[in-house]
Amino acid sequence: MEVFIEPIGRLINELSKLPGVGKKTAQRYAYRIIAMPEGEARAFAEAVLDVKRRVHFCKICGNFTEEDPCAICKTRDASTICVVKEPKDVIALEKLHEYRGVYHVLHGVIDPMNGVGPNDIRIKELLARIGDGVKEVIMATNPDVEGEATAMYIAKLLKPMGVKVTRIAHGVPIGSELEYADEVTLARALIERKEL
Amino acid sequence: MEVFIEPIGRLINELSKLPGVGKKTAQRYAYRIIAMPEGEARAFAEAVLDVKRRVHFCKICGNFTEEDPCAICKTRDASTICVVKEPKDVIALEKLHEYRGVYHVLHGVIDPMNGVGPNDIRIKELLARIGDGVKEVIMATNPDVEGEATAMYIAKLLKPMGVKVTRIAHGVPIGSELEYADEVTLARALIERKEL
Repeated sequence: MEVFIEPIGRLINELSKLPGVGKKTAQRYAYRIIAMPEGEARAFAEAVLDVKRRVHFCKICGNFTEEDPCAICKTRDASTICVVKEPKDVIALEKLHEYRGVYHVLHGVIDPMNGVGPNDIRIKELLARIGDGVKEVIMATNPDVEGEATAMYIAKLLKPMGVKVTRIAHGVPIGSELEYADEVTLARALIERKEL
Repeated sequence: MEVFIEPIGRLINELSKLPGVGKKTAQRYAYRIIAMPEGEARAFAEAVLDVKRRVHFCKICGNFTEEDPCAICKTRDASTICVVKEPKDVIALEKLHEYRGVYHVLHGVIDPMNGVGPNDIRIKELLARIGDGVKEVIMATNPDVEGEATAMYIAKLLKPMGVKVTRIAHGVPIGSELEYADEVTLARALIERKEL
């Protein structure tokens, strides 16, 4: 006899597909779902279906959207494009309420070790956007090896097109302690020091 | 402008209802769901709905079941009843493939601090099961204050009914080191020592 009855076993299996969720956590989640009132469980399932039905990629910036082009592409200053790896990076930047320009989501970074080349991410689409009054492209890929390489690669393509290309600053995080900063970051902060 | 578009925001909100899941984790889960192929997301949602449609409590033992009475109540040795707090405790015991008897799920333990009295858990239903050839009742509530108190309370009710009442053994866990055992457990292991 199986330890779990079929519907519970299947739900645990589905929940295990979420990132970082093992059998034990999936089991806890499943018990919560079983304990939910009928309507709440239906709302939960409906939200899953709805996100697949209604969320698409903006054909301009590649971010998640319901309308195409997305609300950001439609309403914001298109002379500055901020290039990021993934839609979640747009969220991180939007939370600042500082940036007024538009975005370009690459959906990945160049990563030869994992077989991701320049043609596998949305670089062509970015180049196609340059021209219509674009003044600056901010490279906001992650400050890791692949993110740096991708930023450099794209910068090399963009500069001959007469557009200003910038990179987000690297350095010690605000509120952190030098003692705990990793050596690479600290060395970078020293090299990129600014006059006060 | 909201940081998340509505369907994503709603999905994050629903996922946050899972135990121990905050906004950040819910966001990670939501992105995985968005990235799922259509069919996979539908299977996920369907599993949630299905568990609510098909899973009920067995009217005899109170465990989760599709059929009533459940497969355990229908096929196993009913002369021994193992009393547990929750359905997940049945799973823990079933995984051993050692126990051949039936279960009784209390759906809680007596916990006066949180307003849970003897009438709020399935004690009456347990008493009603005694008689039809029940020889032993194993109290397998958790080895914590409420679990112990509940085991003692139920044992007091059952003993006059002429049924043997036992309690799962307490002691140092197999494979652990004495040095790291908590004092209460170690003291208990000493008191309940057995002759070899």
